[in-house]
Amino acid sequence: MKNCIVAQSGGPTAAINASLSGVIAGVMNSQEFDTIYGSVNGITGILEQRIVNLSTLFASGKPMLDKLIQTPAMYLGSCRYKMPAANEDPEVYKAIFRFFEEHEIYAFFYIGGNDSMDTVDKLSAYAASIESPVRIIGVPKTIDNDLCLTDHTPGFGSAAKYVASTLLEIAHDAYIYRADSVTIVEVMGRDSGWLTAASVLARTHYSAAPHLIYLPECAFSPEEFLADVKQLLTKQHHVIVAVSEGIRDKDGQYISASSNTVDNFGHSQLSGVGKTLEYYVKEQLGVKVRSIELNVLQRCASHLASKTDLDEAFRLGQHAATCALSGQTAVMLTYQRTSNAPYTITYGTAPVCDIANKAKDVPRSFINERGNDVTVDMIDYLTPLIQGEASIQYENGVPAYLPVDHLLS
Amino acid sequence: MKNCIVAQSGGPTAAINASLSGVIAGVMNSQEFDTIYGSVNGITGILEQRIVNLSTLFASGKPMLDKLIQTPAMYLGSCRYKMPAANEDPEVYKAIFRFFEEHEIYAFFYIGGNDSMDTVDKLSAYAASIESPVRIIGVPKTIDNDLCLTDHTPGFGSAAKYVASTLLEIAHDAYIYRADSVTIVEVMGRDSGWLTAASVLARTHYSAAPHLIYLPECAFSPEEFLADVKQLLTKQHHVIVAVSEGIRDKDGQYISASSNTVDNFGHSQLSGVGKTLEYYVKEQLGVKVRSIELNVLQRCASHLASKTDLDEAFRLGQHAATCALSGQTAVMLTYQRTSNAPYTITYGTAPVCDIANKAKDVPRSFINERGNDVTVDMIDYLTPLIQGEASIQYENGVPAYLPVDHLLS
Repeated sequence: MKNCIVAQSGGPTAAINASLSGVIAGVMNSQEFDTIYGSVNGITGILEQRIVNLSTLFASGKPMLDKLIQTPAMYLGSCRYKMPAANEDPEVYKAIFRFFEEHEIYAFFYIGGNDSMDTVDKLSAYAASIESPVRIIGVPKTIDNDLCLTDHTPGFGSAAKYVASTLLEIAHDAYIYRADSVTIVEVMGRDSGWLTAASVLARTHYSAAPHLIYLPECAFSPEEFLADVKQLLTKQHHVIVAVSEGIRDKDGQYISASSNTVDNFGHSQLSGVGKTLEYYVKEQLGVKVRSIELNVLQRCASHLASKTDLDEAFRLGQHAATCALSGQTAVMLTYQRTSNAPYTITYGTAPVCDIANKAKDVPRSFINERGNDVTVDMIDYLTPLIQGEASIQYENGVPAYLPVDHLLS
Repeated sequence: MKNCIVAQSGGPTAAINASLSGVIAGVMNSQEFDTIYGSVNGITGILEQRIVNLSTLFASGKPMLDKLIQTPAMYLGSCRYKMPAANEDPEVYKAIFRFFEEHEIYAFFYIGGNDSMDTVDKLSAYAASIESPVRIIGVPKTIDNDLCLTDHTPGFGSAAKYVASTLLEIAHDAYIYRADSVTIVEVMGRDSGWLTAASVLARTHYSAAPHLIYLPECAFSPEEFLADVKQLLTKQHHVIVAVSEGIRDKDGQYISASSNTVDNFGHSQLSGVGKTLEYYVKEQLGVKVRSIELNVLQRCASHLASKTDLDEAFRLGQHAATCALSGQTAVMLTYQRTSNAPYTITYGTAPVCDIANKAKDVPRSFINERGNDVTVDMIDYLTPLIQGEASIQYENGVPAYLPVDHLLS
């Protein structure tokens, strides 16, 4: 028997199920595996025995795999479980590898972001230490686009398309009144500004919105921000600002109205930068101002997914089976951009130890000198990633997604 | 010369430009008019001489009219101008009717909601008082669906489709974790709950979200709300709540964290009911909770418009020219539902004086006894309105909308 198991972890994206669909399709099409299992709620599904048989669930093949591609969030559920160090809590590792042995697991595929790659790295190191033959393969995803050694990440293109498209719609909404107004759109991105930068793709020949773009990679000055808004209002009625939730001042303090709480990974939980800037504008400039938090829609709006993103994520998932069968382990799958015009990529791998617990910031050359806009290099990088529209099926007026009953029991 | 003029007023909807497109098409196709003008920023465009020639702008016909149908917000811009009473400030009326005379205006079409129908009513009464031959015709629009004497309003179906579709996506997003959680989705609707009620259309055979629905038509009890959430959490991990921004307690006080400010029409400006309920849940139940404000996207997300809504809005707009030419005035166009299965409507008119400054609340029979859900009558009413998807064109990855340069000068 040669089986494998796949799981998903971290936050949702519109493309993480496309990767899952690709993994399942790749495994099935290889005809090298007997069964592909799914662990429900990430690695905790293995620890708590919540396993589904994906070979059975997706026995009908293409129609269900296609529907999975277009289903938002995570079909197998997620977890925010931080793996302990192997020398601190070896029982967790023993339990996982006991499961692998009992179920004759040849490969474990973990689809996730930075924190999930930490899990992949730790399991890979443990597998090496006990000379386990199980291949451990990381499949990237994150709307933050902050994983190293890959040109971009699955899920980012769809989130970017959502941010750009909705920002354009928000601009149309703001333009209807003649009175001066400021609209602040808060975009996800705790430490990296890729997704906020993607708002630049909302610009058209008639609309320059967003007029200001602030990323966490540059220190934010409330004084400069207010000066920039004031200056713009001398020549136009409407100022639309895209701002990352994670912007900080020159001392590294978050510009945020919320109290700081910390999640399981030690990340500060943020909210409220939009409200904070709204308050600054109202108090200091006395102009009509509104803040809009794009919230979870930017990561789960499959109805507005990028076809390029979904297609790539599916193919990357398919590549996972190939890599495992060729003997690779302790790696994360990657995209390498081979050309920008026409846009082409290849699928590769990189050592997961070089990726876990690292983050790819926006390079300074992608941000303008004043730190309130992005450069043409950024636009050239981003543009191919949001091309094409997913052809979502609708049923009774709402999107027809794959049922997730198994997450609700 | 026989000319006409059209304007838009109030808040944006995804369908108000479809009505405008219909008005222009109806006027052009009738071949009875020389020129159709557009007043920019509602009635204030006439007062301040901001007029565009729509006959020229849309001379190319169908391609641009089609693109207009799919463009969000308001092509001609809006205003929040409250007409003074004619006996208090006759100069305003004289200026408007002087403009009509000078431009040989045969008909004035005003596309808007309750407040705009107040303008239509006042202008109609004034026209009658001076025996002006100008036909004054109201074309309804509002995402609130609260205009009387029409089965529903243009723009509501698209907003309803947005609310239902995104709520389903938010549910998928929430379901990924096993930990108990409460998600509160705040929907627009100051005084009427139609749009919040439309969240019910997110329910599928696998997802019962929203599990609780609160409309302004029923007094809201924080105690009962917390008891309902607590009860649901004994049998499921995830509780998703749809709540109207305008819910009030038994004494009529808004359930809202915001300070009360008042706009030009004397309406309280609301925000923060989602945050308020989030606070209740966090403090009283100690469970993970998130609030999501759908914000302006629910009224301007043309990428997710209802085809039924856009088609009807266009036809209603076309009907405007017919009504004016048949001599009608002082009326608002209306939809009459003639059958629910199959769904059919006819286009009619009603006296605007019976509509202005009135509001159509959700009938009590459309809300369940406990006031935390809607009934099957509501679902039957709503379902046809969100059917079909607009076929939006994209350019470079974002929707290709009609340029609105004339609003930005």
